[in-house]
Formats: sequence, C-alpha cells, structure tokens
Amino acid sequence: MSMKPVVVVYSSCDRIGEYLVREGVGEMAELEVIEVGGSDGEKNLIAALQRPRSTILLADPPKLVPHLHHAKHLKWFQSTYAGVDPIFKMGDARRDWALTRIAGVFGPKMAEYVVGQIISNERHFKTFDRFQREALWPPDKNRIASYRELCTLTVGVLGLGDIGAEVARYARFLGMKVHGVRRTKQPTPNVDVLFDESELGAFLGSVDYIVNTLPSTPHTRGLLGGDVLRECKKGCVLINVGRGDVISEGCLVRAIEEGWLGGAVLDVFPVEPLPSTSPLWHLPGVTITPHISALSLSHQVVSIFKANLQRYLQNETLLYLVNWDQGY
Amino acid sequence: MSMKPVVVVYSSCDRIGEYLVREGVGEMAELEVIEVGGSDGEKNLIAALQRPRSTILLADPPKLVPHLHHAKHLKWFQSTYAGVDPIFKMGDARRDWALTRIAGVFGPKMAEYVVGQIISNERHFKTFDRFQREALWPPDKNRIASYRELCTLTVGVLGLGDIGAEVARYARFLGMKVHGVRRTKQPTPNVDVLFDESELGAFLGSVDYIVNTLPSTPHTRGLLGGDVLRECKKGCVLINVGRGDVISEGCLVRAIEEGWLGGAVLDVFPVEPLPSTSPLWHLPGVTITPHISALSLSHQVVSIFKANLQRYLQNETLLYLVNWDQGY
Repeated sequence: MSMKPVVVVYSSCDRIGEYLVREGVGEMAELEVIEVGGSDGEKNLIAALQRPRSTILLADPPKLVPHLHHAKHLKWFQSTYAGVDPIFKMGDARRDWALTRIAGVFGPKMAEYVVGQIISNERHFKTFDRFQREALWPPDKNRIASYRELCTLTVGVLGLGDIGAEVARYARFLGMKVHGVRRTKQPTPNVDVLFDESELGAFLGSVDYIVNTLPSTPHTRGLLGGDVLRECKKGCVLINVGRGDVISEGCLVRAIEEGWLGGAVLDVFPVEPLPSTSPLWHLPGVTITPHISALSLSHQVVSIFKANLQRYLQNETLLYLVNWDQGY
Repeated sequence: MSMKPVVVVYSSCDRIGEYLVREGVGEMAELEVIEVGGSDGEKNLIAALQRPRSTILLADPPKLVPHLHHAKHLKWFQSTYAGVDPIFKMGDARRDWALTRIAGVFGPKMAEYVVGQIISNERHFKTFDRFQREALWPPDKNRIASYRELCTLTVGVLGLGDIGAEVARYARFLGMKVHGVRRTKQPTPNVDVLFDESELGAFLGSVDYIVNTLPSTPHTRGLLGGDVLRECKKGCVLINVGRGDVISEGCLVRAIEEGWLGGAVLDVFPVEPLPSTSPLWHLPGVTITPHISALSLSHQVVSIFKANLQRYLQNETLLYLVNWDQGY
C-alpha cells in the first residue's frame, strides 16, 4: 500500500502521534509526525513537506505557516485550532487546497471559561484572594461581597457561531438575558434580542458583558476600535475569547481609562505572547489569561481528523471546511 | 389600631427598614427598627425587646442571640439567615415561639458560587492571576492550562435541601455527574447516584468535588471529621458552603496535609471570623472566602417576611418553619 497519502503532523497537542496510532489513523494513511521544538524539527518538517506524497497536513497554524510554501503538493490542511487567521495573513499564497478547522468542540470549554469569569468578577474572587494572601477577614465583608444577581444582568454575544451559541446557552441557564449580534437576523436559540451589525451601538448600550467570539477576518478587525465603546452601558465588561485584533491595545486601554468599559477579561491579544511591557497587565479591572480559554485536546482533534480523513479518502465533502472568501 | 403587633428589626441587611416601609409592612404591624452597631443600639434593642407588644422579631441570629432572653413576649422570630444554629446553641431557653428561616432564595446564589469556584479551580484562575501580577505569559502555558473537562467530573452534594438541590441542578447543566447524600433515599432530581448516611465512605470515594450544604445540627457536626476523608478519591476538593463545624480545623488541615483532600474551598468555619493565626490561610490548595457565598438581600428577606406576616396575622402556618427537634 505504498500509495497511501502521507499526513505530515506538526502540532503541540499533547502526544497527538500516540492518539493517531491508537485511533487507527496509521492504517488509513502514512503518518509523518514531526516534533515541534525538537532539535532537527524544522529541517525534518521541510523535508517532509517537500515529499510528493505529502498531500495532507495536520498542524497548528501559527507554527506551520512560516514553512507552508514548502508544501508544494498540499491538497488538504486540517488545522488543529479553531482559528485559521495566520493562514490568511500569509498574503497571496496559492489556495487550491482545502482548509478545515476544528469546530464543534470548543463551545463548552469557552462557555465554561466565560461563565467562570463572569461569576469570578461578580463575586469578587480576586479581591477575596488578595484578602486571603494577607490572612485577613475583612470587617466590612458584606459591603465588599455585595453583588448583582446574575438574573439581573444581560450578556451580549458578538458572533453566534458554535462558540457564541454555547456561550448564549450557558448564560441563559444562569438566568441572564442574552443579546446577540450576527450578520443576518435569523432566529437564534437562547438569544432574547438580536441586533445586526448596523446596530452595534445599540447593542453595546444594552449589555453588562460583551463576549467577543468573532474570528479574525478583514471584516472583524478593529470592529470595537475607535471610540465605538463609548456607547457601552456604564460598568460594562468586555470578555474577549475570539481574536485579539477586534480592538487594538491602544483603543482598549483608552476605553478602560476613559471609563467606557468597567473592565475587561482578555484571553487573546493583537500580539501574542502579550509583551511584558504592555500596560494591560496592570490596568485596574483587567484580567489577563494567556490564550487558554479553550485548548485543543488531542483526542478531540484526532477524532475530527479521522472523520475528515475518511471523507477525504472517499472524496466526500470535508467537515468544517473554511471558506476562502469569508476567512473562516 | 394601637393593637398592631410590634416587629423588632435588628439586622445588617442593607437598608432593610426602607425596604419594609416601601413594601407596606409598616401598615401591617408597628416597626421598631434598631440600628446594628449604632451607639445606643444594644440599649435600644433591649428596651424594644421588653415591650409587651414586641411579639415579632426580624433579626440576624448571631447578633440577636445574646439579647434574646429579654424577649419575654416573643411569639415569632423570622431569621434573616438560612442558618439558625446560633439559636440552638443557646442551650435550654424556652421554645414556645415559632422560628422561621430564609429559604428558597439562597440556592441560585450558592450554586453560582460553587460552579464559579469549580471552574476557577479547574481552569487555574488563581495561577493565571499570579502570572498576571508578574506581567508574565508563561512559556509552558498549555501545560499549566491543561484541564479536565467538566463532563468528566463528578460532584458530590452533601445535603439535598433547597440549596443542595440547586447545586445539583447547576452541576448537571454543566455536564457533571452528580452524586448525593441524604437521610432517606427518596428519588431526587438531577442526582445520578444517591447514597444514605451509612454509605458516606463509598460516596466520598466516588466524587471529584464534595459540596457540603448541610446545616449545623448535633447530627451533622463533625460528620467529615476524624479520618473519614481518608476515603476520598485522589485529588478530591471539598467545597464548604454549609456550616464550618462539619469538620474541625485540625481535621481539615490534617486531611490536606496527608493528601486525603487535593484542596478545599472554604466559605464557612468553626469560628468566624477565621483568626489570622489559622494555618488554613496559607495552606496550598485552599481558597478562603469570608462567609459570602450567599448574602441575605434585603428585598428577598422582606418579601419572605411580608408573606409570613400575612400568614401570621391570619393564623396560618408559617413558611420555612424550623423544626425544634431537627434543628433546621
């Protein structure tokens, strides 16, 4: 069976090679697993990409993109991430191959992260952590602990794909009202009020939390920039789990310093890793996590890849195919 | 209408007097609102309690108990708290009056706190907060961020009253399996496996989180003491939002140091405020909050009190009546 396609695997997902073998993917195609960060990693990767039978890629986009021009025989690239924007930022490379992404598995993880951060913020977990570090039971604890009941709050979800839809479902369960923005005003489960993009200002003025789940596309970059956040309701908190370039660092710092935003929970940034010189680290009301709101788990990546490989080998339409025009 | 009963109000609930007036309670009874912590507060309280028409009390139990023996004409005491254990700890006072507590409103608040703490723990919010304070994007962030999906975890709820039931409902929504302990094995919504008290060891061995929602009664005090926590599953975390005396501080410290527990989230303690000398403050894996998992909100306390006052004036059975034999 020397005519099996070669799958070049280049990913930091934990023990992904083992998972692929365990799931029998090695019997469907020849696996060429290149260790990321290994001493000869890049040399081995380039050699593997150049082989005529290397028609399939399973890789982390930001790590693979610098070497993608070596993949002359590429027919299909399965991203291990939901976000495939690094591929679009390469400029005018050829796009005569299929690009698929991971979808359908990040929703619950991101929704857990989002509701965890909302509760942590409303219930002052960081404040009480500070008191704990000082071994202090605050005498005015009831004042400090005073909180808004979640059922009095409104969450606004920007982007209602599989991740945004799950955030809406969790928020609704917790008793919050849910507002949403999507391109077309189609009826959407768990969303009480739907806005279209022309109504962004009204949307921002109506919510206590903005949850951005939008991908990075030419259409979404800078969407929250300029002074659009001036429209926000007092105290509104931005939670960004989509992509960092929906707002520039300068605009975000300004929105917080001007009080347009009451705070922010940021998992994604225009530049990652966030430089240690960024003013965001120490801005009051800002919580920073290093792009961990949803990790690609190997068993889920492999499960999607295997289903897609079966389709590929049978010339069927692939799952989670990226539209080259839309950018996601 | 000088024959209206007098309600003595002694509570730290925010502006409770205003809420009572706004809800028209002042037209149903005569209100005697004594400010807690005011200069003449205790003197005024004692004088008010001694008046023959002072038959009704609306008060925070720990603040009122030292003065309760002055209330010779008491017929009904509405607690502003869910927990009425300070009243039982008074010893052999007369019990020829009705005691009612707040119930039915703390469930969602405590359930929010519990799921927020579970997510914070699984998603390492405190660790990432530490990195943020150091303006550090950890290079091995995926290893640090690695987490268990909630759908792989089991929560064990000790006590399935209105609070425990709500914790079970939230945990189930988040995809967790729910085990529970209650005195009688009656079918219970949102509980996958029910244990009775004789099966405590098996229960402890089956869960990743123990959520204690039990009140303090002679029956529950020390229930998790001794070396019973030796039965816990490896890494199990205790979340205590019930009462602190379900386990002594010494037993808890030992359970964590011996590794019987992987950690603890503690909102209640055998002695409150928790003394600054307690070893719990700095024990690895322990999160401490100062009894804030559910605050009594004035509007909810007043709403329950008003409903009960209507019943009282019409000689109907009161809501959330405490059973003097059971202790809750």
